[in-house]
Amino acid sequence: MDKFNAYVDANAERFIAELQEACRQPSISAQKVGLEEMAQVVLERLRRLGAEARLIEVEGAPPLVYGELGEGDRTLMFYNHYDVQPPEPLELWESDPFDPQIRQGALYARGASDNKGNLMARLQAIEAWLATRGELPLRVTFVVEGEEEVGSPHLAQFVAEHRELLEGADGCLWESGYKDPAERLVITLGLKGILYVELRAQGAAQDLHSSWATIVPNPAWRLVWALASLKDEEDRITLDGLMDHVAEPTPEEMEMLAAIPFEEEKLKADYGIPRFIRDLSGLELLKKHLFGPTCTICGFKTGYTGPGGKTVLPHEAVVKVDFRLVPDLTPELVMDLLRKHLDRRGFTDVEVVDLSGVRPAKSDPQAPIVRAAVEAARAVYGREPVVYPLMAGSGPMYLLCQGLGIPAFSTGVGHAGSNIHAPNENIRLTDYIEGIKYIGELIRRFGG
Amino acid sequence: MDKFNAYVDANAERFIAELQEACRQPSISAQKVGLEEMAQVVLERLRRLGAEARLIEVEGAPPLVYGELGEGDRTLMFYNHYDVQPPEPLELWESDPFDPQIRQGALYARGASDNKGNLMARLQAIEAWLATRGELPLRVTFVVEGEEEVGSPHLAQFVAEHRELLEGADGCLWESGYKDPAERLVITLGLKGILYVELRAQGAAQDLHSSWATIVPNPAWRLVWALASLKDEEDRITLDGLMDHVAEPTPEEMEMLAAIPFEEEKLKADYGIPRFIRDLSGLELLKKHLFGPTCTICGFKTGYTGPGGKTVLPHEAVVKVDFRLVPDLTPELVMDLLRKHLDRRGFTDVEVVDLSGVRPAKSDPQAPIVRAAVEAARAVYGREPVVYPLMAGSGPMYLLCQGLGIPAFSTGVGHAGSNIHAPNENIRLTDYIEGIKYIGELIRRFGG
Repeated sequence: MDKFNAYVDANAERFIAELQEACRQPSISAQKVGLEEMAQVVLERLRRLGAEARLIEVEGAPPLVYGELGEGDRTLMFYNHYDVQPPEPLELWESDPFDPQIRQGALYARGASDNKGNLMARLQAIEAWLATRGELPLRVTFVVEGEEEVGSPHLAQFVAEHRELLEGADGCLWESGYKDPAERLVITLGLKGILYVELRAQGAAQDLHSSWATIVPNPAWRLVWALASLKDEEDRITLDGLMDHVAEPTPEEMEMLAAIPFEEEKLKADYGIPRFIRDLSGLELLKKHLFGPTCTICGFKTGYTGPGGKTVLPHEAVVKVDFRLVPDLTPELVMDLLRKHLDRRGFTDVEVVDLSGVRPAKSDPQAPIVRAAVEAARAVYGREPVVYPLMAGSGPMYLLCQGLGIPAFSTGVGHAGSNIHAPNENIRLTDYIEGIKYIGELIRRFGG
Repeated sequence: MDKFNAYVDANAERFIAELQEACRQPSISAQKVGLEEMAQVVLERLRRLGAEARLIEVEGAPPLVYGELGEGDRTLMFYNHYDVQPPEPLELWESDPFDPQIRQGALYARGASDNKGNLMARLQAIEAWLATRGELPLRVTFVVEGEEEVGSPHLAQFVAEHRELLEGADGCLWESGYKDPAERLVITLGLKGILYVELRAQGAAQDLHSSWATIVPNPAWRLVWALASLKDEEDRITLDGLMDHVAEPTPEEMEMLAAIPFEEEKLKADYGIPRFIRDLSGLELLKKHLFGPTCTICGFKTGYTGPGGKTVLPHEAVVKVDFRLVPDLTPELVMDLLRKHLDRRGFTDVEVVDLSGVRPAKSDPQAPIVRAAVEAARAVYGREPVVYPLMAGSGPMYLLCQGLGIPAFSTGVGHAGSNIHAPNENIRLTDYIEGIKYIGELIRRFGG
């Protein structure tokens, strides 16, 4: 890989300039700003590599950029997104979020890490490969959507309409990742799924004077009682049947957990909490965090919530609840369990509204793509990466990968202080250049 | 009383005009509009009767009007208020709320029923008495405050500073009342008390991504669990010790309940509910409504409550709860029971903030003032009144009356369609004139 790495180093300045160009184009999905323009930028960069590339339209979505190039026994899919989070609050940025500046070895811009830095590193690595090693040793596909930051609302439709573009891939590099505070590359093999619902209860036709609370049902109490049946004071989910479907981590996964550095005291201080739930620590804490399902009240709205007192009997109550799903829970299963659980307890009046759901995704640590990912990390970074068998967060990885039998992993060019989704998002230039080399090494190892 | 009644009839037009004058003066305590001016109107009307009257200042409050006149063995106190509810929403009024109009035998204005109609009827009755029967047969005192519609926040201070003006009264006519849909005069002998609190719980220092719900405590769950310990799904209050303090209605009170007409089907239709709590009906329903304490969620606020989903772990949750207090519960007792109940269950982290409280008030049905009130109603209206031993609502009756050993009752010139606190508030002119005669009869019977 000497020639490859030498090419990357020789072209580092241009690669960084190209990333700056990409970051200069706003592409904010939540605000529908610059998406078509950004899709064109990605399309042209792919075509410049010689890829067969095109825009794919799904009704209601900004164009998805699809590209493929190379030939070989294996296919490696790159999943990325060209949209970014809104830059607000602008006053907290030290420089314009869409005017990428370099300060003290880091590039500051919205999207620098999430996800333009990662997308561009992957594209630059292909260029360097073609320039120094000729043909790619495998087939590469790019799936670059423009709605990841708003929850990928049209990705399922894309998969349904273009399954043939995805099926048969032998591995997928998911969008992003970072180095932890100890500068170890983080590789993640899965994401939790999620079911997001609203529970709604109705009382009288309108708010009443609270003196009627003696005899007129209060929807807020209905929801409190329904919720209290779902989780106990020890934070154990008591929804009938749910825990029966939760897979225990394998011994191999427990070993992976044991190898993950987890700064408990720093986290407690950062979050301002005296203790974690049930006072957990160590491996039990990490096991619950990564392999535990959740049932979370994200919001509760009923009655009067302004200052002081108002003696009102609310006519309606709504609670927003998310369930983070670990293997082998699915949104469909949990919806069904939830409805039955409530009905069994007489809460037939509590409506359950399904707002969204994605399945959990998890890749076999022994899958060739995962082995290649870890080996490439050792080779490029010179030390063992941290491998998370599952992350605490969620994303549509199952939809695009595991659901089609494609093992996937995620890593990228960020660092612990990259401030993704926040002001002063940045990557370090050395991480970016190393990240390009990492992609080259991955292609070499996975392409054989 | 023939001369008295003849005087009232002969002066009816002027009495109505004087009420219109009083209603023309806006006096909105919530908006601090016209209160000084209205206090002057009341003061002058009292002085015109020959009363010794003055304004009493309590710091932060609009002036309270106090007046006394007459001599005799007994003292009858009139408690009224000169402030009114805000007139909004204005667009629903058929005529200007402060330009009293007469339509189809009714006078429409904000305050017509609550409470200027009642206050003026009492003043007019005194005039008629003095004009036709000479000296009053008892001593009469007027306590007319200007903050009833905002919860009488300075009344306790007034009582503390001017106890001597109240003590020793033999009975009190409370501010207002109405005829029921069957045109029977409603007389009430008591009000529930209330304790209004906020329960507050804190989680992390700021809202977090809900993937942290695995290990970071969620204040919304803390409140759900705390609340669920206070009342069960059958709507039974399970707060430790509370029900031990709840007095059963006496046999006499149960008889009074049995005599109260209660239109269950109409109420369910009006409120749009298929059934009352626990499917109660008849005497059990009315007993729970009037003699049952409540624990009501008036509002719950936490996390994200806008449209759609946001996966957030809230950092704070607040629930507003009111307890309606029946004899022998007091706000102080319930605060104490609540704190101990929560602590006993480990909810030491749940803060309880006392927003306000008043004690329940109940008068002995055999008290001379009550007997006089019922007899006067029979005499003037020609039929049996409906006597409520207790109302479902709350007010500061204990503070001014029962706490000082003064039996009290409430009745007035409204009717079932008076729309108090609502647009198109009104009284019927015949009710107003009858109401003046009722006060005359009450004075005669109570004064002896």
